[in-house]
Amino acid sequence: MNLEQQLQEHLKQIAVPNQALAAYAQEREDALAKPRGTLGRLEECAIRLAAIQNTPSPRHEHRLIVVCAADHGVLEEGVSPYPKDVTRQQISNFSQGGGTITVLGRHAKAKVLLADVGVNYDFPPNPGILNLKIAHGTKNMAKGPAMTREEALRSVLAGIEIVLREPYVDMVAAGEMGIGNTTPSSAICSVLMGLTPEEATGVGSGLAPERLAHKAEVIRRAIEINKPDPNDALDILAKIGGLEIGAMTGVYLGAAMRRAAVIIDGFIAGAAALLAEKLAPAIRHYFFAGHCSKEKAHRATLEYLGQTPLLDLGLWLGEGSGAAVSMFILECAAAHFNEMRTLEEAMICDTLEIEKAKAEASR
Amino acid sequence: MNLEQQLQEHLKQIAVPNQALAAYAQEREDALAKPRGTLGRLEECAIRLAAIQNTPSPRHEHRLIVVCAADHGVLEEGVSPYPKDVTRQQISNFSQGGGTITVLGRHAKAKVLLADVGVNYDFPPNPGILNLKIAHGTKNMAKGPAMTREEALRSVLAGIEIVLREPYVDMVAAGEMGIGNTTPSSAICSVLMGLTPEEATGVGSGLAPERLAHKAEVIRRAIEINKPDPNDALDILAKIGGLEIGAMTGVYLGAAMRRAAVIIDGFIAGAAALLAEKLAPAIRHYFFAGHCSKEKAHRATLEYLGQTPLLDLGLWLGEGSGAAVSMFILECAAAHFNEMRTLEEAMICDTLEIEKAKAEASR
Repeated sequence: MNLEQQLQEHLKQIAVPNQALAAYAQEREDALAKPRGTLGRLEECAIRLAAIQNTPSPRHEHRLIVVCAADHGVLEEGVSPYPKDVTRQQISNFSQGGGTITVLGRHAKAKVLLADVGVNYDFPPNPGILNLKIAHGTKNMAKGPAMTREEALRSVLAGIEIVLREPYVDMVAAGEMGIGNTTPSSAICSVLMGLTPEEATGVGSGLAPERLAHKAEVIRRAIEINKPDPNDALDILAKIGGLEIGAMTGVYLGAAMRRAAVIIDGFIAGAAALLAEKLAPAIRHYFFAGHCSKEKAHRATLEYLGQTPLLDLGLWLGEGSGAAVSMFILECAAAHFNEMRTLEEAMICDTLEIEKAKAEASR
Repeated sequence: MNLEQQLQEHLKQIAVPNQALAAYAQEREDALAKPRGTLGRLEECAIRLAAIQNTPSPRHEHRLIVVCAADHGVLEEGVSPYPKDVTRQQISNFSQGGGTITVLGRHAKAKVLLADVGVNYDFPPNPGILNLKIAHGTKNMAKGPAMTREEALRSVLAGIEIVLREPYVDMVAAGEMGIGNTTPSSAICSVLMGLTPEEATGVGSGLAPERLAHKAEVIRRAIEINKPDPNDALDILAKIGGLEIGAMTGVYLGAAMRRAAVIIDGFIAGAAALLAEKLAPAIRHYFFAGHCSKEKAHRATLEYLGQTPLLDLGLWLGEGSGAAVSMFILECAAAHFNEMRTLEEAMICDTLEIEKAKAEASR
């Protein structure tokens, strides 16, 4: 079986969530000892979790954040103020527990895995860094394809396999580290959502505003030279993507295969989500938007995917940081649903009165 | 010392946060191993926590939620679809662990205290319910003052004392249970923010929309009959308030005396925050708005207090539920600040390059 067939076999495992369980969950939610609807999005999330996980008791205990790392040839076009070397330095920092995602992941009670799928550096053997290197970074997409189709496929399969190896997963997020990676992400958003490069391009992790037009121009050139097929996610990923973006796409696909909730982090995560949705449209039902990044085209991406972000805290760091913070929201969603009593169990009397009140409230 | 003097003595203990520590915290925040500003409101919260708690290492471990319970004489005007008895039934339910706030409080790693300051029922001795009863509910404010000034004072002092008894407090929220309590809350908001009763009145926990005008009319009558002095928080609380609202006001004041962060929950909590701010204007600097309730005048209350809510999840339950969910946001704020490495510690090289980038980003 070639790589293309392997991926297709995986994609077939992604089922739509169980709507009968959603209906059951809605009924239980409405019976809990509180006025109907008063827990807002926590209720909606609990119901979705039950349907996604195919269980009457939504789970939140097993949380996974896969931080995918790779470098980008397009950096030589001057699209980021940071040097390429920062990718490996930050991954080393993360592996020693000092990065944002390692700290927030720990507090979110998530297992944080660091996956090197394309860093331009050979890390010494380190139990904290999964060596899944496909290449030492992409080529400059402004001059030709970022990678081969085979490399693109291998990056997606690597992401899937990371998730499949986990014994349990209830919710999964992908984070990233890859200096320059908002550039391919904007290119992907542009092609998949039909935005102009200008509409899809933001300042990333700190480009000077006067360099923004140049960054958009680089993206325009990359699309013009490579002509990615907007109906072929792998063609897009190979020509104007990134190795970590492919791995993130795979992490999402693997999570949906496992019937885990998928939490989208920020802008780069959003681009990977667009690719995953192109490969397996049903994955849309597994998505939760962790937060709304300040990066320009992220809100548009979430709208395109039909998602309303859980948090809006002005984050724009990436790494999986926003997804980590939002995991507690899903914990609260699952926990209130599982652990609260119903009106009947709580012996809240005048039940008829209450029912009348609820009927009034929901009118 | 009479009760009035006791309260004044307490209020003198509320200091403005330490601005020198805020400046230090901003400097450390900017030195952490991430592009400056990329953690958005988590950064702002960490800096505020340091200044509030008067420490270079903001704390989040000791979390307290005080659920204050009382009944309301105004219920006889038909302002809620729920019977009064639900107050005691829910407090019993909470004390057995089955309520929303007990579940969410547990997941938020908060100590949840239930304080009966005015329930119209004598609970059998129960270690889970603090008996601080001042009266068996308020009188009908649509016909005269809800309580005496002494009762109002005692409710505030009861709230303060609950917090003062705790060995450690890093962040504190007040929740409530009191069928009918959006009515006095709307009355308080109307008087303190200069809103018409209509502008200040929402459907509470599920009033039929066609009853809304009646509820606003009851509030208008209560204000006209009692003529509370808008410059005297205790007069407002006594005439058109509630015993649990007074206790919540006290919980906030006690928290600020202890230099703990104060998390405002929903609409009733907002009314209590307005009273606390009237008594001790410096408390404004201790406030964090946990979330934006769907109840009509809550957003206006938060704006009046200069607060932007941390969460907006469509909750409108009260009990302290939104504050409980938001406690994790403050945990993430404190944790990233304390536990991340600086750029220097992480040996992110090309430091000069990075500094240039950060300077560019912040321009």
